[in-house]
Amino acid sequence: MVEIKVVKKVLKENELIAEETRELLKEKKIFMVNVMSSPGAGKTLLLEKTINQLKKDFKIGVIVGDICTTRDSERLSRTGAPVVQINTEPFGGDCHLSANVIQEGIRQLDLNNINFLIIENVGNLVCPAEFEVGEDKKVVVLSLPEGEDKPLKYPLMFRVANCAVINKIDLAPYLELKPEQFAKNIKQINPEIPIFQLSAKTDDGLSAWLDWLKKQAKAKIA
Amino acid sequence: MVEIKVVKKVLKENELIAEETRELLKEKKIFMVNVMSSPGAGKTLLLEKTINQLKKDFKIGVIVGDICTTRDSERLSRTGAPVVQINTEPFGGDCHLSANVIQEGIRQLDLNNINFLIIENVGNLVCPAEFEVGEDKKVVVLSLPEGEDKPLKYPLMFRVANCAVINKIDLAPYLELKPEQFAKNIKQINPEIPIFQLSAKTDDGLSAWLDWLKKQAKAKIA
Repeated sequence: MVEIKVVKKVLKENELIAEETRELLKEKKIFMVNVMSSPGAGKTLLLEKTINQLKKDFKIGVIVGDICTTRDSERLSRTGAPVVQINTEPFGGDCHLSANVIQEGIRQLDLNNINFLIIENVGNLVCPAEFEVGEDKKVVVLSLPEGEDKPLKYPLMFRVANCAVINKIDLAPYLELKPEQFAKNIKQINPEIPIFQLSAKTDDGLSAWLDWLKKQAKAKIA
Repeated sequence: MVEIKVVKKVLKENELIAEETRELLKEKKIFMVNVMSSPGAGKTLLLEKTINQLKKDFKIGVIVGDICTTRDSERLSRTGAPVVQINTEPFGGDCHLSANVIQEGIRQLDLNNINFLIIENVGNLVCPAEFEVGEDKKVVVLSLPEGEDKPLKYPLMFRVANCAVINKIDLAPYLELKPEQFAKNIKQINPEIPIFQLSAKTDDGLSAWLDWLKKQAKAKIA
């Protein structure tokens, strides 16, 4: 039971730092979105496409969390956006990005040249949901091959998320599952959440997601 | 930095309890395998098939970890094996099964009628890798749609695993990736690890995995 108390203490400290970040981003008029998912749900490709579409409207910066490797940040750097890579392995292979790590990442960026900050979190459907980092919106990305029961099995992530993306819908014909059941299961956990079904690979459904994201950012920046 | 020290302390306590479990299972001649993966990699279907194939040779028991829901344990119960369900939500939605939770789960089983214990861990490619639970073998299940970079991005899991299963190979024709690159990336992290490519859905490649698992169990039980 020791573990539980400890987690609570860590979460409280985390919340204080997240609040500092929230204040800073409010002052600087920077919108920040925290994108979370299982490993392999397709966050990086989705963000590559997203940044390429939005970079004419916003000054985008990116913070990428990974336990190891710089693959995702290299891919995202090709969009031209400034990217801060955080490898959590020196911190014991941390399974999420905590508020202090994000605060440190933000310090590496030129905040006068950014108004739209994207966090690509560590691939994990559990722990990142517990850690506020000072973001305006949390997005969970789920991919079709993961199965329609995931929202029921990992409810906290879907409860805290402000938007759910169901990715890889191009694989639907080859999977024995009902895509509409995904949305139904997500709504069971979080009835009001907007859901976007799309394929980052084929661009199918991408525009509705981009519109939603633009609207959220403009509401803060304007 | 507080967080890191805390994790180390928890891990040390965890190891002591795992050692108690190891002693108990040695005395009772019970083989225990800990099966880990991302959410949606197909652990439950793989285990359903595995139990149905092995139940004539072994007295199988199962401990299933989930944050929420009893779906997986209901599916596995249909094999006829005794199943203990652990929901981690009362413990703050824990992202892994720790040694004390497994010890408690084992207490619920009739150990005189079991010689092969399967743990289906919480879907998470990060945290479960850090927690010994007293198992004889650790198995990591990866599914093809997750992408071939996962072993490089989540190296600890592949470093500690005694065996890797690459599941959902039936989807290979519809994915833009090279299945052989998966094995190559796994070997880069863990050169000696046996790797089984299979589809739990079509049974393709299942027998080599079953043979390996039987051999490991017999080596301990005999």
